[in-house]
Amino acid sequence: MDEINDSEYLQETPYTEINSFFESAPPLKDVVEINRKLEEFIERNYSSSENKRTSRVVCITSGGTTVPLEQRCVRYIDNFSSGHRGAASTEYFLKAGYSVIFLYRRGTCQPYCRSLPDDPLLECFDITNESNIEVDVAHAEAVKRAVSEHHSAVIKGNLLKLPFTTIFEYLQILQLIALSMRSLGSSAMFYLAAAVSDFYVPWETMTVHKIQSRSGPLDMRLAQVPKMLSVLRKDWAPMAFCISFKLETDIKILLEKADMALTKYKMHMVVANELLTRKEEVIVVSKSGKITVHREKNQAGADVESPLITLIVDRHSEYIKDVGS
Amino acid sequence: MDEINDSEYLQETPYTEINSFFESAPPLKDVVEINRKLEEFIERNYSSSENKRTSRVVCITSGGTTVPLEQRCVRYIDNFSSGHRGAASTEYFLKAGYSVIFLYRRGTCQPYCRSLPDDPLLECFDITNESNIEVDVAHAEAVKRAVSEHHSAVIKGNLLKLPFTTIFEYLQILQLIALSMRSLGSSAMFYLAAAVSDFYVPWETMTVHKIQSRSGPLDMRLAQVPKMLSVLRKDWAPMAFCISFKLETDIKILLEKADMALTKYKMHMVVANELLTRKEEVIVVSKSGKITVHREKNQAGADVESPLITLIVDRHSEYIKDVGS
Repeated sequence: MDEINDSEYLQETPYTEINSFFESAPPLKDVVEINRKLEEFIERNYSSSENKRTSRVVCITSGGTTVPLEQRCVRYIDNFSSGHRGAASTEYFLKAGYSVIFLYRRGTCQPYCRSLPDDPLLECFDITNESNIEVDVAHAEAVKRAVSEHHSAVIKGNLLKLPFTTIFEYLQILQLIALSMRSLGSSAMFYLAAAVSDFYVPWETMTVHKIQSRSGPLDMRLAQVPKMLSVLRKDWAPMAFCISFKLETDIKILLEKADMALTKYKMHMVVANELLTRKEEVIVVSKSGKITVHREKNQAGADVESPLITLIVDRHSEYIKDVGS
Repeated sequence: MDEINDSEYLQETPYTEINSFFESAPPLKDVVEINRKLEEFIERNYSSSENKRTSRVVCITSGGTTVPLEQRCVRYIDNFSSGHRGAASTEYFLKAGYSVIFLYRRGTCQPYCRSLPDDPLLECFDITNESNIEVDVAHAEAVKRAVSEHHSAVIKGNLLKLPFTTIFEYLQILQLIALSMRSLGSSAMFYLAAAVSDFYVPWETMTVHKIQSRSGPLDMRLAQVPKMLSVLRKDWAPMAFCISFKLETDIKILLEKADMALTKYKMHMVVANELLTRKEEVIVVSKSGKITVHREKNQAGADVESPLITLIVDRHSEYIKDVGS
């Protein structure tokens, strides 16, 4: 294993690398539409809010990004993430009075839909004798809750959903969101739960056509995705309260990397997940130490996200008090 | 570009390679359950059928396979496929009187659901004043059709759905299906529309923990997945009518590879898809030549799969007449 604290690793990502990532990325579609939605959302939930002083907006990122291996994309590398944590956290932040910008991977778990089967339409509905469709008894409550709470959040205008698929789309949209949330100062929060690829194939060096399988193995060289956390903290939204996530399968590496993210990227909190236990507990790392947050085991349906969001909201309040809004 | 007809490429996949793939694969869960379902399905739709002479069963594979890069899977390589072709073809084969074993990638397009939005539950349903949920007018017909036709196929027992995610699961289940369909002789068909990975990381050489991103690029070496088509034709179900698919972004490579699949893997038909035009037309390659099949452009909702399945069913009938059942 490489030495983890080597000075090269602790060096900040140079701006040239970040610029070159954005310049070489395929242009984002719908930039105008996304900016319009963001402006409207911030205006409604913050700028024109009667309680501007207490209005808070969190950007929650969720699901994994893909890295295309060919320009006409047939093959890609994907990062595993069901999007369960992002979806659950969205529900708890809404409940805590936050407005939520939900930047999610297409096809991943949606808020209020966590208890539904994979394919709710085909698995929860039946045909009645009158050849109408109806939801079956076993799923009735879950389906009703999903549709009604989801609609109510979208209609009230507290929840803005923006989808992505590739690493390029993810980072481009994240930048648009961060720039539009800049004006919120310390009332803004970033809760970066998405599983972002560490490696990618720069668009201009990518093969246009499908990689051919002939005899013999395939050798691939992937470049590192420049770490955008520093630039988010420094330039895009410098006053925002920032929480990043680490997911590892080895607990020692996990805690070392969580500590490093605090120092290197100046995160306010890092949520450390161990792959196999992440639904039971997470370790929240901040300057003031490490706190293990557990799911309420004796409570039916209790999520680890419930105490986690309570803790984060408290810390965000302290932060706002400390730095001013 | 490599020379396409080199003797090495035309050489058959050695059995040792195939055996070593299966031996090193992580064990398939639910083998007993899958075999039970298959036995029941074949018994109902073929062995105990009153019209055994005219009963036909097709195994349709659909969606892309994943290749895990780590044993505790965080990252994987994925092959792009919406599963649209497999889902549409399932509908037309059922209509033509076939029983269908639908081997599909989790989360991809399902039969009768093609005209629905990505997230039907959240996008097609509303809350009524009485706080019940109801399907909105714009989607009512599509939702009703999806639920009723899907249920009817599953309940009648003409449609058996088996999901997969990884390349290991896909090939392991395909083998179980093929061995169980062997007894059907020429009444069996394989319609292999899934986008199967060409490269993989052998399980035993795979890193257990998440690959670490340090400074510098990532170099990966992937091995070729042994081609299972020959062994399917020769050993697993030697009498079955076999159709494979080729998807390429370059038309010249596409037709060369389609021809090669006929010769090398002894397919009865190869459906050649060019990535950008594949919803409008496909080229069906067989010993008797190439036929381009077009979507009926003047007919609303017409799919290229409609004339394609008509052509295939005709050829399958001729084949049964020729070889006997």
